Amino acid sequence: MTKINRQYFLTEFPKGMPTEETFRLVETTTPELEEGQVLVRTVYLSVDPYMRGRMSGVKTYIDPFTLDRPLTGGVVGQVEASKDANFEVGEIVAGLLDWADYTVASGKHLKKVPAFLKPVSAALGVAGMPGCTAYFGLLDIGQPKEGETVVVSGAAGAVGTVVGQIAKIKGCRVVGIAGGPDKVAYLRDELGFDEVIDYKAGDLREALQAACPNGVDIYFDNVGGTISDEVMRLINFHARIILCGQIADYNLEKPEQGPRHFGQLLVKSAMAKGFIVSNYNDRMLEGITQIGQWLGEGKLKFRETITEGLENTPQAFLGLFRGENTGKMLVKVSDVQGQ
Amino acid sequence: MTKINRQYFLTEFPKGMPTEETFRLVETTTPELEEGQVLVRTVYLSVDPYMRGRMSGVKTYIDPFTLDRPLTGGVVGQVEASKDANFEVGEIVAGLLDWADYTVASGKHLKKVPAFLKPVSAALGVAGMPGCTAYFGLLDIGQPKEGETVVVSGAAGAVGTVVGQIAKIKGCRVVGIAGGPDKVAYLRDELGFDEVIDYKAGDLREALQAACPNGVDIYFDNVGGTISDEVMRLINFHARIILCGQIADYNLEKPEQGPRHFGQLLVKSAMAKGFIVSNYNDRMLEGITQIGQWLGEGKLKFRETITEGLENTPQAFLGLFRGENTGKMLVKVSDVQGQ
Repeated sequence: MTKINRQYFLTEFPKGMPTEETFRLVETTTPELEEGQVLVRTVYLSVDPYMRGRMSGVKTYIDPFTLDRPLTGGVVGQVEASKDANFEVGEIVAGLLDWADYTVASGKHLKKVPAFLKPVSAALGVAGMPGCTAYFGLLDIGQPKEGETVVVSGAAGAVGTVVGQIAKIKGCRVVGIAGGPDKVAYLRDELGFDEVIDYKAGDLREALQAACPNGVDIYFDNVGGTISDEVMRLINFHARIILCGQIADYNLEKPEQGPRHFGQLLVKSAMAKGFIVSNYNDRMLEGITQIGQWLGEGKLKFRETITEGLENTPQAFLGLFRGENTGKMLVKVSDVQGQ
Repeated sequence: MTKINRQYFLTEFPKGMPTEETFRLVETTTPELEEGQVLVRTVYLSVDPYMRGRMSGVKTYIDPFTLDRPLTGGVVGQVEASKDANFEVGEIVAGLLDWADYTVASGKHLKKVPAFLKPVSAALGVAGMPGCTAYFGLLDIGQPKEGETVVVSGAAGAVGTVVGQIAKIKGCRVVGIAGGPDKVAYLRDELGFDEVIDYKAGDLREALQAACPNGVDIYFDNVGGTISDEVMRLINFHARIILCGQIADYNLEKPEQGPRHFGQLLVKSAMAKGFIVSNYNDRMLEGITQIGQWLGEGKLKFRETITEGLENTPQAFLGLFRGENTGKMLVKVSDVQGQ
């Protein structure tokens, strides 16, 4: 029952922007299963900005990737073989698995994807890690109140699209910041954002001021850098800054200097709080259940940007930093079979 | 019952460090009292770093001072005359009053200083605004737990001295940052700080690393700037940064650039929160009562730096930015009479 298996290895800890040479596709065969193990065929593989931090060789909030071992990330897959009584061949599962055609995983590290979740890829996006990131960050840290102004950067991304829609559900005025006219149109016309600013077009400072006549009560920050510098100028008394991502910084060889924001936080009695979704592991079911309900009611919509073929995973990952995705960026590795 | 009265007026909104020309001493006479008014003779006048923000002409968390009107600040004084039945001649009161020999104030804006509080100047320091700032900032925002490492900058100041002592009461390891050997000795030998770093001597980064072998759980920041940049490198997962003052920035004509801290807050799931003590107005009695109890038990000690004479108020104020004070900086304007 061994299979030919292609796996992506990390060849270096890149300085600055990774290149295709940072990744190497290695052909191996899957080992025989031991008791308790499951052979999972990758259907969808998730690429996410946070993975850049794991390529630095330094422990941040998560252990770094190891050189010459397969990279790992969120995967939705299908059970090909099982020596764990809890999993049957053909079942759809999710877990932190390899950038590969197949992963041999302990059944303890796999979760079943509920049958009602269609497409199954939603388990990696709106109903998975990015959706829960939006849910807990906005609601637990942001504590949005009806009528408040919520600004979200990286608004067209997997997290940002959900943040904006939940903020609308909570009665807030939602201002998104995204790059390019297609994303702007999608967020405003399909997702119902009140205002969307194209940071690539025109003067961001002016556009923000015009879009936020009553200032900014909550800033959900996926990007950092100079975009955040501009938003920080407009925060209100008791503002909450939710630090979810700083994608502008991830590929810098040397940290950029910028305005110090502590003075602004001080005079506004404002709070900035960083988090990672795993801080909420013990409440994950709450998040997924509520998101599932909103999906069922049509209150949450989502889009995916899907790259075909495992061999294109590095391209998909690097595309995140060029803003090539609207909604969740995924790699489709194989088809769901027999369903 | 009119009195010759000297009042300090603001002559300009200074750019950069104020000078003695920023202030003008004007001789007037006190007006006749109207119903409900009280004539207060200044005994002690408080000068505080936050007042610099009020000299900018811009509203921050508090209205700016007005040109050609008396400056105001915390005052402990004695009632000279009263048309408010709640106040008798000779009583010791506190309020936000003029930089002047006398203020005519509405009785509604005055508080009686409890008779047990000796010296009465404590109502401006350890048992007043700076003490409550330390109390609420550390306990409400910082939520210190036994065994955690608390770093406080501006440690020898009116707020910092109280922060460190309350952190010790709560069982924390306390590391102070202050300037000069006298302050270091006072904080370590008299107030019981575990470690005190003289930021003017030697390498701050090395000294901080040595003083915080387990990292920093709480940083109570009174100064900002490059000192805070160094502390931020050492924060732990779930650290709390309490933004109380940014004295390093107050006299800058143009904000300095510095490292962006949002990335560090993100990877550490850490929080930075600004505040002003008036956010806790409805809990002030709790703070003052607890501080009074600790004073009575000998668990809180305090020191004051007292400048004599109203005419030296600008010097005392400017001395704050040269680090000339240990503990609360006060101006003594007159003696308590008849007690």
